[in-house]
Amino acid sequence: MTRIAIDAMGGDYAPAAIVDGAVWAALDYGVQIELVGKEDEINAELSRISKKGINSNRGGYFKHKIKVDLSNLDIKVTNAEEVIEMGEAVGQAIRKKRKSSIVLAVDAVSSGSSDAVVAAGSTGAAMAASLFGLGRLTGIERPAIALTLPTIKKPFVLLDAGANSSCTPEMLYQFALMGTTFVKSVYGYENPSVGVLNIGEEAGKGNELVQTIYKMLEENKDGMNFVGNVEGKEIFKGTCDVVVCDGFVGNVALKTVEGTSSMLLSMIRQEFGANIISKVIGLLAKPFMKRIYKRINYEEFGGALLLGVKGITVIAHGRSTSYAIKNAVRVAKEAVETGVNKKISEFFQ
Amino acid sequence: MTRIAIDAMGGDYAPAAIVDGAVWAALDYGVQIELVGKEDEINAELSRISKKGINSNRGGYFKHKIKVDLSNLDIKVTNAEEVIEMGEAVGQAIRKKRKSSIVLAVDAVSSGSSDAVVAAGSTGAAMAASLFGLGRLTGIERPAIALTLPTIKKPFVLLDAGANSSCTPEMLYQFALMGTTFVKSVYGYENPSVGVLNIGEEAGKGNELVQTIYKMLEENKDGMNFVGNVEGKEIFKGTCDVVVCDGFVGNVALKTVEGTSSMLLSMIRQEFGANIISKVIGLLAKPFMKRIYKRINYEEFGGALLLGVKGITVIAHGRSTSYAIKNAVRVAKEAVETGVNKKISEFFQ
Repeated sequence: MTRIAIDAMGGDYAPAAIVDGAVWAALDYGVQIELVGKEDEINAELSRISKKGINSNRGGYFKHKIKVDLSNLDIKVTNAEEVIEMGEAVGQAIRKKRKSSIVLAVDAVSSGSSDAVVAAGSTGAAMAASLFGLGRLTGIERPAIALTLPTIKKPFVLLDAGANSSCTPEMLYQFALMGTTFVKSVYGYENPSVGVLNIGEEAGKGNELVQTIYKMLEENKDGMNFVGNVEGKEIFKGTCDVVVCDGFVGNVALKTVEGTSSMLLSMIRQEFGANIISKVIGLLAKPFMKRIYKRINYEEFGGALLLGVKGITVIAHGRSTSYAIKNAVRVAKEAVETGVNKKISEFFQ
Repeated sequence: MTRIAIDAMGGDYAPAAIVDGAVWAALDYGVQIELVGKEDEINAELSRISKKGINSNRGGYFKHKIKVDLSNLDIKVTNAEEVIEMGEAVGQAIRKKRKSSIVLAVDAVSSGSSDAVVAAGSTGAAMAASLFGLGRLTGIERPAIALTLPTIKKPFVLLDAGANSSCTPEMLYQFALMGTTFVKSVYGYENPSVGVLNIGEEAGKGNELVQTIYKMLEENKDGMNFVGNVEGKEIFKGTCDVVVCDGFVGNVALKTVEGTSSMLLSMIRQEFGANIISKVIGLLAKPFMKRIYKRINYEEFGGALLLGVKGITVIAHGRSTSYAIKNAVRVAKEAVETGVNKKISEFFQ
């Protein structure tokens, strides 16, 4: 049985949504859950769930109670007195708050009591705790955040989505290898294509970093299927399975996707809300809008994997609902069961 | 009368859409138009327009003929034998093809026969031709592409949107000054807010470049209204009037906006096209979708201004329709009439 430790105190709706999502995941995926955080608060949520059921919440529109008998599930609680808050100076917080929920959740993996950790709190804290607590895989210079994004066809993976603000070409080369291994083992993609996120398709485009990594990938002897540069407007067409970039550019791109999507959804709401006729048409169109929303909703993807550390860390969105947490657990479970880290390690012997 | 030179050969639908848009602009804005390109091809388009009217085309949905009497408009044609094609090595092409449409269109501005140039062909060629043909404004290190983008409130300007793949903090400081002057004089924004595109709001986030420009803008003595870092998900909320970043990051962000928007629009088409009922509802919803499309459509913004050169260069989208070209001429006209370059120069005496 795969065992997942969860920082129950991290995220905008913690601990309630985290505990709901964790129990939901235990129910749906048959995993063992280790909830790490303030024991009394977690127990209060568990007793609420035991009485009233899981609060399911998908994008605010799919909401009902799911009845559950907790005695049938494998859920344990590990007490953590402290919490690292958003915006705290990460390095310092990790060292000082040795009893914080994120540090102890990572400890659960390093000590072997869990197989993976899921965290929806400060991304910086989750990264730092994983880096210090688990260490890097042999040969890996820096871990990267591998984020799965939707396209009109199949999803692709963008990395680094924000772990490293400054990167060397060597780091990007390793990201390409890790990303290839990830989509092969977790998504079963065959001979996945690798592209460099750039501002034009031609070789020689962009800054020094991308020009150098272009050459390195062109000459790669690791069997990667390099397809050249890809632009931001192309990546959502599903033409590329792995897109590499430095963490600054990747994070800007990812947040721009979020910003554009929510602007468009706001505009749709504004337009359909204009008058009584538009509201009626809006109501008719709602099921279609929901399907679209579902296709682009980050909650479906659950979380991003921190690739390159000795263990599985899934970083979930700060605004994670119970549904997002459930899916983040699924991502963690798949990463454990497909042995993605072992496969990555084989490249770096 | 404001005089606008247009590279009639640049853009995916040149020369037809360019000539249509140029004539449309002359009709609507009362500007003088100088069409630069292959004389016989341009004249053929003009004679088509004279007989059948302007082919208006806004996003492919607003299409009808606009009757026009060319003898009432001030349109001249300047012959250019050569064309710089997309993907040509720009520096070389500019030097070798001295009789190309983009070089001669820029010459029209430097010689004083036109006040501004509009170009929808190779962005690199338009930039290089402007830089060599017009020169930089005194004190400006590098020109930047200032792109206007929609938000749920009022538009903002992002710069650099792709002129410089690598930037120094000093360049970004100048971009902030130029952007502030631009939105003040062209959009009439009072005390416009300036933000740095970054991966978090806190000072100290991001790479060395953004950390340095943050400090410089915090201490600025030029009266700029610096509001700190802004993330990609925030910029579309209309909280910031000028957003600065290096041209690589800006171009990735801009293309990601394009990619995300067209993915969403494709998904909307897919969902509404699924069956007969969805098609009927889609038909009812169409007017609302059109309004949203109009709000985010790049054609409405016409083109981006190359700020920092001694003259007005408007870079239009490669896929420009006649409507986009018409609006690009409007952008050029506004820049000329508000004297944005003179105001920028005042900062750099």
